[in-house]
Amino acid sequence: MCEHKPLRVTVWNEFFHEQELPEIRAVYPNGIHECLRGFLEKEQDVAVTCVTLDMPHQGITEELLRNTDVLIWWSHARQDDVTDETVRLVKEAVLSGMGLIALHSAHYSKIMQALLGTTMTLHWKHGDREKLWCVNPTHPIARGVPACVDIPEEEMYGEAFDIPKPDDIIFIGWFASGYVFRSGVTFTRGLGRIFYFQPGHEEAPVYEHPHIQRIITNAVRWARPACRREAPPQNVEEK
Amino acid sequence: MCEHKPLRVTVWNEFFHEQELPEIRAVYPNGIHECLRGFLEKEQDVAVTCVTLDMPHQGITEELLRNTDVLIWWSHARQDDVTDETVRLVKEAVLSGMGLIALHSAHYSKIMQALLGTTMTLHWKHGDREKLWCVNPTHPIARGVPACVDIPEEEMYGEAFDIPKPDDIIFIGWFASGYVFRSGVTFTRGLGRIFYFQPGHEEAPVYEHPHIQRIITNAVRWARPACRREAPPQNVEEK
Amino acid sequence: MCEHKPLRVTVWNEFFHEQELPEIRAVYPNGIHECLRGFLEKEQDVAVTCVTLDMPHQGITEELLRNTDVLIWWSHARQDDVTDETVRLVKEAVLSGMGLIALHSAHYSKIMQALLGTTMTLHWKHGDREKLWCVNPTHPIARGVPACVDIPEEEMYGEAFDIPKPDDIIFIGWFASGYVFRSGVTFTRGLGRIFYFQPGHEEAPVYEHPHIQRIITNAVRWARPACRREAPPQNVEEK
Amino acid sequence: MCEHKPLRVTVWNEFFHEQELPEIRAVYPNGIHECLRGFLEKEQDVAVTCVTLDMPHQGITEELLRNTDVLIWWSHARQDDVTDETVRLVKEAVLSGMGLIALHSAHYSKIMQALLGTTMTLHWKHGDREKLWCVNPTHPIARGVPACVDIPEEEMYGEAFDIPKPDDIIFIGWFASGYVFRSGVTFTRGLGRIFYFQPGHEEAPVYEHPHIQRIITNAVRWARPACRREAPPQNVEEK
Repeated sequence: MCEHKPLRVTVWNEFFHEQELPEIRAVYPNGIHECLRGFLEKEQDVAVTCVTLDMPHQGITEELLRNTDVLIWWSHARQDDVTDETVRLVKEAVLSGMGLIALHSAHYSKIMQALLGTTMTLHWKHGDREKLWCVNPTHPIARGVPACVDIPEEEMYGEAFDIPKPDDIIFIGWFASGYVFRSGVTFTRGLGRIFYFQPGHEEAPVYEHPHIQRIITNAVRWARPACRREAPPQNVEEK
Repeated sequence: MCEHKPLRVTVWNEFFHEQELPEIRAVYPNGIHECLRGFLEKEQDVAVTCVTLDMPHQGITEELLRNTDVLIWWSHARQDDVTDETVRLVKEAVLSGMGLIALHSAHYSKIMQALLGTTMTLHWKHGDREKLWCVNPTHPIARGVPACVDIPEEEMYGEAFDIPKPDDIIFIGWFASGYVFRSGVTFTRGLGRIFYFQPGHEEAPVYEHPHIQRIITNAVRWARPACRREAPPQNVEEK
Repeated sequence: MCEHKPLRVTVWNEFFHEQELPEIRAVYPNGIHECLRGFLEKEQDVAVTCVTLDMPHQGITEELLRNTDVLIWWSHARQDDVTDETVRLVKEAVLSGMGLIALHSAHYSKIMQALLGTTMTLHWKHGDREKLWCVNPTHPIARGVPACVDIPEEEMYGEAFDIPKPDDIIFIGWFASGYVFRSGVTFTRGLGRIFYFQPGHEEAPVYEHPHIQRIITNAVRWARPACRREAPPQNVEEK
Repeated sequence: MCEHKPLRVTVWNEFFHEQELPEIRAVYPNGIHECLRGFLEKEQDVAVTCVTLDMPHQGITEELLRNTDVLIWWSHARQDDVTDETVRLVKEAVLSGMGLIALHSAHYSKIMQALLGTTMTLHWKHGDREKLWCVNPTHPIARGVPACVDIPEEEMYGEAFDIPKPDDIIFIGWFASGYVFRSGVTFTRGLGRIFYFQPGHEEAPVYEHPHIQRIITNAVRWARPACRREAPPQNVEEK
C-alpha cells in the first residue's frame, strides 16, 4: 500500500526571462525550476532533477526520460526553439506512461500541441488578479486545496481556450477584468497523464503560494505512472 | 432533411413571484411563461403550451407530456409544493425521450434532483452582474451566440455546484463579485436530453435579452427527441 | 504519503439465494459477503463489516455508514424489499463522500436508481461465457489486471444499458452469445465515488477468481473518500 | 430552420487495393470512394467530390478543403505516402471547422494521429464476423439504426485501442473470435467534429450494407460545421 520508491520528477524550464530580465530574476533568483524543486523536495519521497533549454540536447535525453516519472514543463518566449527531436522524445515518453505537467504559457508549447492536436490558443492580458475556483472537489489534485485560491497578481488567460474536451476540469479561473478560464484540466494520452495548470506568470511569485504548491505537488502524485512501457504501443496482429 | 412537424414546447412556470410581488409583475406582466412563449413562437415551427403550478394536476398530465417534445421548467419559491406524482410523470417522460430545459432556480427542483441524483446545491447572492462565456463553440446550443454575453443584472450562482459531470459544459458564468459558475450544461438521462441554464433571475428582464432568447431557442431544438418511446426501457430477457 | 488508517469496508448482501437454494449455497457456503470479506481482509489495512437484508434496520444505520469508507452492495431477488429509509441513508452517505461499489444485479437496486436517475435496465440471459476487456489501462481500478479476463460461466448482461454517461468506462464485456456490455464503469455523485461492476452472478464462483478479486480490491482503494462531510452540501448564501 | 445549402462532401480514398488486387476490385469495381458517393448522393442535398492519393497534390488542395463541409478518409496500405503538407492542410481545415470521418484502417492515418496525439494502435485479425451494438441511442449518428447491426464478414479490430477518451462512444463492436472494440467514436478538435468508424475492410462489401450507409450518412450530417473559420484560432491579446 505504501509506495516506497522515490517519485522522480524532472523540471524542464526554458530559463530565459529569469536570466534576461532583472525584474524577473528578482522574483525567481535561481530560476522557476529551482523554486519548483524547492517545494517539491520537501516531500520525503520526491527527487527532482532540473534541466533547461540551453543545456546539451535541450536538457532532454531518452535516458533522462526513462528515469522520469513526471515531467514538469515551463516555457514561453522560446517555444519555437524546442526541436522536433525534443518534442518526439517527450511525446513518446508520455504515450509510454510518463506524467506531464504543463505550467502557464506551456499551453502553447510544441509538446502540448503535439499531444493534444489543437492550437491550444487563448485570449490573454497582462496585469490581472485571479480567483481560482475548484469545481471538482473529489479529484486527487484538489486534495487539501480550499474552494477558492486568491492570486493577487496574475496574467489573464481567457476563453475560448482551444483544447480538446478535458478528462476533468478541476479549476476554473475568475479574472477581475471580466474573463474566465479552464485553469486546471487533465488529459490522458496513451498511458500518460497530463495536467495543464494556468497560474504561474513569471512577473509575480505565484509558485511561492502555498496552495499553488499544494496543487502542483498533488498533480505530481496523480500523474505518476502506475504502469510504464518501454515504448508506445504498436498495432498487434492476433492469431 | 427539413423537419416539417411542429416542435411542441410546454412551458411550466411556478408563476408565484409574478403574482405576489408587484416589482416582479412589472418585469414579467404576464408571467415568465408568457415571455418565453413570446419569443419561442416567433419560430415558425414551434408551438408553445403554457401551464402553471396552480392549475389542476399542477398543470402536468400524462397526455400533455406525451404531446410535448421539450418541457421548459421555471421554479423557485414553491419547489416543495410539486408533488411526487408530478415528479414521477416528468421523470418518466424524460427517460422516454422528452427534452427538458431547467431554467435558473429550477436547478433545485425535485425533478432535477430526481433525474441527476445529486443535491444540485450551489452558492448564491443577490444583485450581481454576469458575463456569460461560451467554452464550447461547436455545440448546437451555442450557434449564433457571441463569445461573451453581458447580463447587467443577475443573481449570482457560484461554485461548487453539486451536479454530476455534465455531458458538455457550454457556458461558464463570470460574476462581478468574484464567482464563477457552470451556467450552461447538458446531460442525457435515458433517451431524454437535459439542458440546465442558469440565467433568469426574476428581478430583471433577462429573458428579454436577444442572446438569451437565442440560447433557449437553440436548446429547444437541440433537446427535441429524435426517438421517443411509449415508456422508459425495461429489463429484457434474451432467449 | 502512506495512509496508515484502516480502510473500513462494509459489505451489504441481500443474502437470499445462498440461503434458499442449495446449489447457490454450494457456491458460496457462507454467503457472497463472506467470500468478499475473505479476499478483502487479506489486505493488511482493510477491515470489513458484513451486514445483510434481514438484520435489524436492513443492516444499515447512520452510525454504520458514518464509519464506512466504502460500501459494497450485492442485491438481486429482493431489491424491492429495501426500504426508502435505507435508500435515503445510503444516498446521503454517498453524496457526503462514502464510496459505493455496486456488484452485478445491484445495477437495478433502488440505491443505484436514486443516485443515477435512469432506469438502469439492460438485456440479460442465463448461461453464458464472458471475456472482460480492459479499455482504460491507466485507471487505478485496472492496476495489475490483464488486458482480458476470462470468466468461463457468467450471466449475460447486454446493451443497451440505460445508465448516464459514465465518468470512465474501464471494462467492456464480450459474451459468447453475441452481446457486449459496459461491465465496469465509474460515476461521481456529490463527493462519493461509485463503481458498477457487472461480473458476479451467484451460480458460479466468480468472486473466487483472482483477477476479479484484484479489480474489486482496486475499486475499494479507488472509491475511498479523500474528504468526507458530515452531511451532503446545502445551498449557501454569500454575503 | 431548413438548411437549404448543399452539404459538400469530399471522399478521399487511397484507391490502392481496388486497383492492385482483382479480388478487391470485384468487391468495389469503381473504388470504395464511388461506392460511398453512390449512397451519399441519394440524399437530395448532398454533393460529393471524390479524390484519390495518386492525383496531383494527393488530391488535397486548400481550395478543395475550403469548399468541403465534411471530408471522408479511407486509407490503409499507403498511409506512409501521405505527405506532411497534405496532413497540415487537412488538420488546419478540421481545426477551422471542417468535419472529418475516418473509416476503418484510417484510424492509423497520419491525419488522425496528428489530430488526436496518440498512436491510434489496436489489435487486429483477418476473417471475423462483427456485431455492431449501439450504446448511445440518442446520438444523431445512431438515428434510425437498429440496436445491433450484423456484419457477416469483417476484419477484427480489438482493444486496447490507443485513442484519447472520445466525446461519445456510439457503437461497440463484438467479434466472434472473442474481441470487443470501440467501433464508432466521436471527437471534437478545434471547431471540427471527427467520427471514427471501424467497419469497412476492403475484402467484403461492408459499405453496401444499408445500416452502415445510414450510419455514414448520419455522420456526414452530424459532422457538418455550424460555423467555419478562415483559419484556426490564434492567441489574442485583450486590451
